[in-house]
Amino acid sequence: MSDVFCKIIAGDIPSTKVYEDDKAIVILDITQVTKGHALIIPKEHYESVLDCPEELLDHIMRLAQKIARAEMAAFGAKGVNILTNAKEAAGQAVPHFHVHVLPRYDEHDGLKIECPPSGIPMSDFPSIAESIKKHL
Amino acid sequence: MSDVFCKIIAGDIPSTKVYEDDKAIVILDITQVTKGHALIIPKEHYESVLDCPEELLDHIMRLAQKIARAEMAAFGAKGVNILTNAKEAAGQAVPHFHVHVLPRYDEHDGLKIECPPSGIPMSDFPSIAESIKKHL
Repeated sequence: MSDVFCKIIAGDIPSTKVYEDDKAIVILDITQVTKGHALIIPKEHYESVLDCPEELLDHIMRLAQKIARAEMAAFGAKGVNILTNAKEAAGQAVPHFHVHVLPRYDEHDGLKIECPPSGIPMSDFPSIAESIKKHL
Repeated sequence: MSDVFCKIIAGDIPSTKVYEDDKAIVILDITQVTKGHALIIPKEHYESVLDCPEELLDHIMRLAQKIARAEMAAFGAKGVNILTNAKEAAGQAVPHFHVHVLPRYDEHDGLKIECPPSGIPMSDFPSIAESIKKHL
């Protein structure tokens, strides 16, 4: 694989590392949407959270929690978002599974997550739930 | 505790359940930002991801992955976001840990995650990384 995260893991592209172990690295996102914006990245290549093995997912998400706690303490953040985007339609920019940890400071800190209601009526809910259940 | 999710778990407020086991429930978010928008909620009360025990976090995130895969299959979604907001400053509306699973359909499906660069210069990166490392 030759995505930018594989290259960072191989040491072919520089990065600012916050943490590293045998399974993952944590680096600062080069865009720093908010101060401390970090990425948790598995060393083994998986395209997204959808194809990541469960044991590795556990490790990545425990790391995300640890980084979130550290950032709350380090920067006096008032909150934190933990986010992973799977596939381009969801905003995934690099096709190598990664989790964003975004410390939050106030309503003007740049990051905006807008979740307007779609207007789907509650009468549709039972059939939506059934559709999901069929695939579990 | 008496938040709305505790009441849903206790059966005092109705919900549309997608899945339930001894540790968690999965329900449809009443706002349905996108079709299939689900919430993974631990039965035991924790305020956010920041104070959730690691073993429970593993369970919740594995469930989020399962639901994401099921929704891709059920609705032909083109992508999915998995998101948890910790504290009000990060958009957490209910102070009971929960994870959003948001299937994505196209750029006009309602959900907007805007991540403008903050303009923090790369010369600040080493000190930012050091600050986080001190708290790991």
